[in-house]
Amino acid sequence: MTSADHLTEPAGVPDRPACADVGLLDPVRAGADVDAATGDLAFLQAMLDTEAGLARAQAALGHTPVWAAAEISAAAHTGRFDARDLAVRARRSGNPVIPLVCDLAAAVSGEAAPYVHRGATSQDILDTAAMLVVARSLPGITGDLRRTAEGLARLAAEHRETPMAGRTLTQHAVPTTFGLKAAGWRSLVLDAADRLSALRPPVQLGGAAGTLAAFETLAGEPGSGPRLLAALAGELGLAAPVLPWHALRTPVADTGGALAFTAGALGKLAADILVLSRTEIGEVAEDSGGGSSAMPHKNNPVQATLIASAARRAPALASVLLGSLAAEDERPAGAWHAEWQPLRELLRLTGGAAGLGAGLVCGLRVFAPRMAANLRLTQGLVVSERIAAELGRLLGRGPARELLSRASRRAAAEALSLEEVLREEPALEGRISRDALRELTDPAGYLGSAAGLVDHALQRIPAGRTHP
Amino acid sequence: MTSADHLTEPAGVPDRPACADVGLLDPVRAGADVDAATGDLAFLQAMLDTEAGLARAQAALGHTPVWAAAEISAAAHTGRFDARDLAVRARRSGNPVIPLVCDLAAAVSGEAAPYVHRGATSQDILDTAAMLVVARSLPGITGDLRRTAEGLARLAAEHRETPMAGRTLTQHAVPTTFGLKAAGWRSLVLDAADRLSALRPPVQLGGAAGTLAAFETLAGEPGSGPRLLAALAGELGLAAPVLPWHALRTPVADTGGALAFTAGALGKLAADILVLSRTEIGEVAEDSGGGSSAMPHKNNPVQATLIASAARRAPALASVLLGSLAAEDERPAGAWHAEWQPLRELLRLTGGAAGLGAGLVCGLRVFAPRMAANLRLTQGLVVSERIAAELGRLLGRGPARELLSRASRRAAAEALSLEEVLREEPALEGRISRDALRELTDPAGYLGSAAGLVDHALQRIPAGRTHP
Amino acid sequence: MTSADHLTEPAGVPDRPACADVGLLDPVRAGADVDAATGDLAFLQAMLDTEAGLARAQAALGHTPVWAAAEISAAAHTGRFDARDLAVRARRSGNPVIPLVCDLAAAVSGEAAPYVHRGATSQDILDTAAMLVVARSLPGITGDLRRTAEGLARLAAEHRETPMAGRTLTQHAVPTTFGLKAAGWRSLVLDAADRLSALRPPVQLGGAAGTLAAFETLAGEPGSGPRLLAALAGELGLAAPVLPWHALRTPVADTGGALAFTAGALGKLAADILVLSRTEIGEVAEDSGGGSSAMPHKNNPVQATLIASAARRAPALASVLLGSLAAEDERPAGAWHAEWQPLRELLRLTGGAAGLGAGLVCGLRVFAPRMAANLRLTQGLVVSERIAAELGRLLGRGPARELLSRASRRAAAEALSLEEVLREEPALEGRISRDALRELTDPAGYLGSAAGLVDHALQRIPAGRTHP
Amino acid sequence: MTSADHLTEPAGVPDRPACADVGLLDPVRAGADVDAATGDLAFLQAMLDTEAGLARAQAALGHTPVWAAAEISAAAHTGRFDARDLAVRARRSGNPVIPLVCDLAAAVSGEAAPYVHRGATSQDILDTAAMLVVARSLPGITGDLRRTAEGLARLAAEHRETPMAGRTLTQHAVPTTFGLKAAGWRSLVLDAADRLSALRPPVQLGGAAGTLAAFETLAGEPGSGPRLLAALAGELGLAAPVLPWHALRTPVADTGGALAFTAGALGKLAADILVLSRTEIGEVAEDSGGGSSAMPHKNNPVQATLIASAARRAPALASVLLGSLAAEDERPAGAWHAEWQPLRELLRLTGGAAGLGAGLVCGLRVFAPRMAANLRLTQGLVVSERIAAELGRLLGRGPARELLSRASRRAAAEALSLEEVLREEPALEGRISRDALRELTDPAGYLGSAAGLVDHALQRIPAGRTHP
Repeated sequence: MTSADHLTEPAGVPDRPACADVGLLDPVRAGADVDAATGDLAFLQAMLDTEAGLARAQAALGHTPVWAAAEISAAAHTGRFDARDLAVRARRSGNPVIPLVCDLAAAVSGEAAPYVHRGATSQDILDTAAMLVVARSLPGITGDLRRTAEGLARLAAEHRETPMAGRTLTQHAVPTTFGLKAAGWRSLVLDAADRLSALRPPVQLGGAAGTLAAFETLAGEPGSGPRLLAALAGELGLAAPVLPWHALRTPVADTGGALAFTAGALGKLAADILVLSRTEIGEVAEDSGGGSSAMPHKNNPVQATLIASAARRAPALASVLLGSLAAEDERPAGAWHAEWQPLRELLRLTGGAAGLGAGLVCGLRVFAPRMAANLRLTQGLVVSERIAAELGRLLGRGPARELLSRASRRAAAEALSLEEVLREEPALEGRISRDALRELTDPAGYLGSAAGLVDHALQRIPAGRTHP
Repeated sequence: MTSADHLTEPAGVPDRPACADVGLLDPVRAGADVDAATGDLAFLQAMLDTEAGLARAQAALGHTPVWAAAEISAAAHTGRFDARDLAVRARRSGNPVIPLVCDLAAAVSGEAAPYVHRGATSQDILDTAAMLVVARSLPGITGDLRRTAEGLARLAAEHRETPMAGRTLTQHAVPTTFGLKAAGWRSLVLDAADRLSALRPPVQLGGAAGTLAAFETLAGEPGSGPRLLAALAGELGLAAPVLPWHALRTPVADTGGALAFTAGALGKLAADILVLSRTEIGEVAEDSGGGSSAMPHKNNPVQATLIASAARRAPALASVLLGSLAAEDERPAGAWHAEWQPLRELLRLTGGAAGLGAGLVCGLRVFAPRMAANLRLTQGLVVSERIAAELGRLLGRGPARELLSRASRRAAAEALSLEEVLREEPALEGRISRDALRELTDPAGYLGSAAGLVDHALQRIPAGRTHP
Repeated sequence: MTSADHLTEPAGVPDRPACADVGLLDPVRAGADVDAATGDLAFLQAMLDTEAGLARAQAALGHTPVWAAAEISAAAHTGRFDARDLAVRARRSGNPVIPLVCDLAAAVSGEAAPYVHRGATSQDILDTAAMLVVARSLPGITGDLRRTAEGLARLAAEHRETPMAGRTLTQHAVPTTFGLKAAGWRSLVLDAADRLSALRPPVQLGGAAGTLAAFETLAGEPGSGPRLLAALAGELGLAAPVLPWHALRTPVADTGGALAFTAGALGKLAADILVLSRTEIGEVAEDSGGGSSAMPHKNNPVQATLIASAARRAPALASVLLGSLAAEDERPAGAWHAEWQPLRELLRLTGGAAGLGAGLVCGLRVFAPRMAANLRLTQGLVVSERIAAELGRLLGRGPARELLSRASRRAAAEALSLEEVLREEPALEGRISRDALRELTDPAGYLGSAAGLVDHALQRIPAGRTHP
Repeated sequence: MTSADHLTEPAGVPDRPACADVGLLDPVRAGADVDAATGDLAFLQAMLDTEAGLARAQAALGHTPVWAAAEISAAAHTGRFDARDLAVRARRSGNPVIPLVCDLAAAVSGEAAPYVHRGATSQDILDTAAMLVVARSLPGITGDLRRTAEGLARLAAEHRETPMAGRTLTQHAVPTTFGLKAAGWRSLVLDAADRLSALRPPVQLGGAAGTLAAFETLAGEPGSGPRLLAALAGELGLAAPVLPWHALRTPVADTGGALAFTAGALGKLAADILVLSRTEIGEVAEDSGGGSSAMPHKNNPVQATLIASAARRAPALASVLLGSLAAEDERPAGAWHAEWQPLRELLRLTGGAAGLGAGLVCGLRVFAPRMAANLRLTQGLVVSERIAAELGRLLGRGPARELLSRASRRAAAEALSLEEVLREEPALEGRISRDALRELTDPAGYLGSAAGLVDHALQRIPAGRTHP
C-alpha cells in the first residue's frame, strides 16, 4: 500500500510547536490540495512507502521473507514516527533517512529488522520518496490546469469578438478581442499541462554508489539488481530509470523546469488580470476579491495577486534545481541536499497557483461595455494604424502619415475624436464619405483575424484528451 | 536567401571601438562555432532576413510586388548597415528594429520603400530573428553534444570494468567503474540533446497587437493573415505557431530551459573531471590542459573549468526567461526586453561548453592504475559494506557490524589493511579462509551490476539517430 | 597613467567582425557613459594599466629597473593589442591574461621583457582590472543617481500637496500625494547611491596562491610583499585589502549587491511610471517617449521600459556573484570565471538605467488635473476609510460600517457619488451638514501627514554631500 | 512585552497535521536556534506583538484608552489563536493579518475591540512582524559567527606556519599555510558579521497608502502620525524609518543581501573543508562526521555538506528579494507577497549554517603531517616557481625556464623528485650546492608572507568589539 491515506493521523509534534510551519506565510498554497500532498508527513509517508515497497520488491524476488516485508509494510505509517525528532536528528547525519531507518528497524520485530532498508542508501529512499510526492501531487495540479483551460475556452468562445484595447508597452496600440486574450491564456495553460503530463517520475535505486552491489551481495544473487529496481518501480507505480540517477539529476531538473513553466504560464494570466482589474481600467473583476483590513469598499484581485507572487518566486527555485545538475561524484556534498526544499516549494507554489487559477477563471467577471468605453478613450487613435493604411491608399504613404500625424496632434490638443478632426480635413474633402470615415474609425471594425485565431487555438486538444 | 553567409563582411564599427565586445571576458565561447552565430551581426542579419522573408512571403501572396520583395532582399545584408549606430538609436526607441526599418527603407528605392516592414511590428522582427539565431545555433550545439556522447560511449565501453572508487559526500563509498561513470555522463548529454532536438523555433507574426489586422488591411484581403504567417515560416524555415506569441513566451522559456539543462548536464561532466584531476587523485587529465602564467609545471583542467563556469551562470539566465513568462498585456514593458541578452548568453554558454565538452572527452587521458591505487587507499574499508554483508551471514548482523567497526578502527589506527586485521580476528578463526578473505576485500570483486548497467545505457539511441 | 584615455583607438578586430557585440541587444546601455567604460577595450586597458602599475610599483621598491617599468608603461596601450585574438587564445588557457602577458612581453625590449608580470598570477591582473573598471564606472553611475535624486527632490517639493490616488493591489485605496511618491523614489535612489558610494574597490595582489612569495623571491627581499601590494594600490588609486582575496570574494559580491540594489531602486521608479503612464491613467508621461514602427500616435514610456528590463535582469546576475563566494581552494575552477561577465553586465545595466533614470525624471511630465480626475473615479469611495472613521464617531463603529457598506453598494450600483448617497441617508439626517459632508468626501482633505513626510524625507542629505 | 516567550505554548494545529512542516527536509536548520525564532508561531507572535505595541503606542499618545491597550496586549499571545486556521483563511484575503485582526478583536471585550488594529493596514503589521523576527534572529546568528571567527582565529594562529599545498584550478600551485587559509575564512566570516550587524530593522507604519491619515483621523489629531510611528518603534525596539516603506523595500533587500552574503561566506569555508576532507587528501576532518546508512566506516563531512547546501540556495532567494524592489504602486500585487517565505528561508539557512559553522570550526581536526605529505606529492614541482626564479638568477630567465621545463618532464616521467633530477643536471654543475638545492626545493621554505599576512589579518577587530 503506497497511498497517502495515513496523512490524517496525529502529527506527533506536540512539544515543539514553535518550529512547525502551517502555511501562515504561504497563502498561495495554504489549504490547497497540494498542501497535504507535500507536507512533512507526506514526505515521511513517501519515505516509509519506499522502504516498504523495497522490502516487498525484495520479497517478490525471494531475497527477503514475505512475512518480513509484510511486517515492515505494516509498520511503515507516519503515525508511528515523530517527524520533528527525525528532523532534528537529520541535522547530525545530513538527511532524515538515517534516523528513520533506525526507528523503522526498531518498530518491527528483531527478526524483521535486518530486512529494513536492506542494501539501500539514504538517497535511494529520499529520491524515490520525492518522486512519489511529485507523482501524487501532479494529478491535482494538472486537474486544476484542465479546469482552468476549460474555463478559458468558454471565455474565449463567448468573447470571440468582444473588442478591447490591445495594449503594448502600457499604451493602447490597436484593438484586439477579449476572446483572443483568453485563447492565449489557455494556450499557455495547455503548454504547461503538456509539460507536466510528460513527466515520468522514476524510482531511485542503486545502493551506495549506484552499482546495486549491496542488494545483489545481500541477496547472494549477482546481476539481480536491475530486476529489483524494476520490481520496486512496479510496487510504487513509478517509472524505471535506465540508470540509477543519484548524480544524474534529470528527473529533478525536468520537474523543476515544468513546474516553473507552469507558474509562469499562470503568471501571465495573473499579470493581465491585475492590469485589467485596475480601478481606472475595470474591464474584469475577480468574483469575490479579497477585502481590506482598512478600506471596506476595496475589491482586491487577491487570487491574481497570489498567483503573481508564485510566478515571482518559482524561477529562482528552478534555478537552484538546474544548478544542482552539476553534481560531483556519485553523491554530491550539497547539491543534492539543496534540491529538497526548492522542489517541494515549486510543487506548492505551482499547485497552489493552479488551484487559484481555476477559481479565478471560473469566477471571472468580464465587463464588455467597459472594454468598449476604454477603446474610445484615445478618440480613435487606437485605429490610427488602420487609418494610415487606408489614407495611404488614397494619398500615398508619406502624405497620409503627415496628415494623420497632424490630425492626431489636433485631436489630442482639442479633445476631439480623430473622426471629427478628419471630417474637417481639407485634403480628404470629397475623397472619403462621412459614413466611410465613421466605419474606418470604429475599433470594432479593425480586429484582423482575431476571431479566426480564437477558433484555430480552440481546436487544440489538451494532452491526455482525445477530444477538445 | 536566409543564410548567415554575409557575416564575414566588415563590421562597420570603426570609430567606436571601445564599446565592442569580442569575447575577452567570455573564454567559454570566444572562437567557438556559436560565437559567429550569435554576434550582433548575426542578429542583425537575422532581422534583415526576417524583413526580406516577410516581403517575399507578401509577394508570394500577391500583396507586395515581386520586384519590391527582390529589391528588399537584395538590400538586406549587414554590410550596408551600421550595427553600432543602430544600437545607439535603439536606446531612444526601445528596440533596434525601429531604426533598422528606417535604414532599410532608405537602402531601397522610393518605390520599394513602402513595402519594407509592411504591416509588421518591431517584435515580429526581433522575435523571429531571435528564433532564426536559435535555429542556426542549435545544429552546431547538438553536433557537439553528439560528438561528446560518442566519445563517452567509447570511454564507457573501454572502461566498462575498470574499477574506481565510488565517492559520496567526498568520501570513498564503495567501488564503481569508470565505465559506469562515463555512461552516466553520456546519459545526461543525450538527455540534453533530446531536449534541444525537440525545440521547434517558431516564426513570430502578429502585427501591433497580434491580430494580424495591419497585414490584412494593407493587403486589402481580410482573413489572409494566417496564410501570411505560414508563408513566412516557409520562407525562413521556422515552425508556424498556433497563435502569435508576443506575450505567450513558450518558445523562449522552452529554449532557455533546454539550454540551461544542457549547460548543467555538461557541468556534471566537468565537476567530475575537476575532482578526478586533482593533484592528489590524478585519475584523469585533460589532453592539453592550460598552462599557468606563473607555474611552468601546471596542467590545469581548463576545459572543465570553463564548462563549470558556464554551468554556474546558465541557471540564473534561465530564471530570467522563466520570469518573463509573466508578461502583461499584448507586449510587456520590460519583460520582453529582458529576454534578449539572456537568451543569447545561454546559446553562447551552452554552445561554447558543448564544444569544450567534445574536445575534453575526445582528449581525456584516463589512468586506470591510479584508480586502482586510490581504491586501495582505505585499506579495504571501501568494501566494508560487502564485508559486513558476508560476515553478517556468518555471525549475524549485529555481531558482524560490531566486529567490523572494531576492525575498521584498528586498521585506521595501525595503518593496516582491513584484510590484515581480519586475518587476525579470533571470531573469524576457521570460519573464513585466507583466500576467501582476500577475495572478499578486493574492490574489483564488488562492482555489482556496473558492467550490465553500462551495456544497458549504451543501448540508448541518440535522438535523431536510427542506430546507436 | 591609468586612465581610460586610450579607449578611442582602433579596435583591432577588422577581420572577425561577426563576433563583435556593439550593444544591439542591449539598448539599456548602448551609448550610455558606462558603455565605453565597460567594453572589452576598457577591460584590456585596465589589465594593461595593472601590469604597468605593477612594474612601476616594483620599480618604486627598487625591485625592477625604472627604465623597464617605463618601457612597460609605454607599451601598455590597447592600440598595440588585438583584443579578439587575445579572446580566442584565452579559451585555451582559461583567461585572457596569459596570452596578454605573452604579447606584452613581446611588445617591449628583450631587456624589459623579464620585468613584465613579474611574480604575478593571472588573477592578480584580472581582478585588479575588474576593480579598476568598477572604480572608473562608479562616478558616472553615482553622478546619474545624484541627478535623478535632484530631479526627484524638485518633483517632490513641487507636488508636495498634489493629491493622487494611493493604489494598493491595483485598486484605489486612499489618497496620497505625488510629492510623497516622488520623495519615496528619491529615498530609494539615495539608498542606492549610499551603497555604491560605500564601495572601496581593492587592488588584488598575491601571486599564485596568495602568499606573495614569488614577488619576494624574485626581488630577493623577504617580507616585501605587503609593501608591494600597498604600492600597487597607490599606483592605481585603489584600496589596499587586508589579505589577497583570490578566493575571498567580498569585493565582487559587495559590488554586485550594490549594483543590483541600484537597478531595483530605479526599477521601483520605472514600475510606477509605467503604471501612471497607462492610457487609462495618464497621470504622467515621458518627455519624448519612443515611437512605434507601426502606430504613429503612440508615446511609449521607453525609458521606464528599459529601466524595468534592467531591474528584471540584475537580481539573477547578482545571484551568480553571491554564489561565487563559495569558492574552493586558493583559486576556484569555475566560480571565479563565472564572475566576469555578470559583474560587467551589472555595471552596464545599472549604469545604463541610472542614465535613463536621470533623463526620465528630468523630463517627466506630470498631469495634476488627471490625478484629480482619477481620484474622483470611485465617486468618493477612496475616502471611505475616513468617512468610516467620522461616522463611527457619530454612530458607533458597527452601525457606521454597516451604513457605509450599504451606501457604497448603492453608489456603485446607481453610479452616484458617495456624497450624494450619504446626503439622502436618513440615519445622518440632522447629524452632519451638507458642507461637512462635502468636505468629508473631498480626497484632498484626507492626505494625512503626506506633506510633512515629504519635508522630512527631503532633509536627507545625499552621501558625499554636506548640504541637501 | 514583545519577547518570544510564548513560543512554547501548544501549536493549535492538532487536527491538520499533514500540512505541518517541522524541518524534515531542512536539516540545515532543524533544531538550530533560528528554528524556533522563525517558525509560524514566531511570526504569529510577532504580528500579535505588533498589534499590541501599536495599541500601547496609541495609548501613550492618548489616542487609545490605556485599559484597552492593556487588554489587547494581554490577549496577544499565540496560544489563543489557531495558526493553521489563519493560514487557510489568509488564502481568501491574501495575507494572514486580515483574519488575525478579526480573531484578535473577538478575543478582547466589545469595548476594546474598536482599538484593535486601529488605523493600520495589514502590511503595517506583517512588515513590522517580519522585522521583529529578523531582529530576534540576528543576535543568534551573529553570535554563531563570532564563535566561528574565534575558532578560526585560534586555528590561524596555531597553524600560522603549517605548510600545505596552495591549490588553484584543482592543481597544486605553490605552498601556502593552513593558518593563512583559516585567516581568510575568518576574514569572510567577519565581513558577514559586519554586514549583519549593520542592519537596523525598522518598524513599518503608514496606514493604507503610507500617509498615516487613518491614524490621525481616528485620533482626531492631525499631524500626529509621525509621533505614533516613533512611539511604536520605541515599544518594539526597532528603528524608526524616514518614510513608511510599504513600497520602498530597502530593509528587506538589505537583509536578504546580508544574509545571502553570510551564507556564501560560510560556503567558502565549507567548500574548502569538503576538498580537504576528501579521502585522497585527508588534511582535515570534521569532529564527528555523519555516518552512513550503508557503510559503517564512512566519516562524512556532514556539517560542511549542509552549509554548502545552504550556500547553494541562498543566492536564488536573495534574488527574489532584490527583484521585489521594483514594486509598483503603494502596495504591489505580488512582489510584496513573494518576499515573505524567501526572507524567512534566508534567516533559516543562514542561521542554521552559522550554527553548523561554529560547531565545524570548533571541532575541526587538522592533520599537519598529511598536509606535509601532500606537499611532497609533486616531487618538488610545487616550488617550481621558486626554482625558476633562483635558476633565472643563475642562468638567465629563458635558459632557466627551458631547463626547468625539461627537468619537470623528466621528474614526472621517471617518478623522481625535482631535486634528484636537478642534482644530475650538467648545466647546474658547480653552480649550486646539494644543500642549496635541497633547501630550494623544500616547500616549507617558500611561504612568502603567509605568516605576516596571518598576523595582519588577526588584528582585525570584529564589529561590536573593542578588542580583538
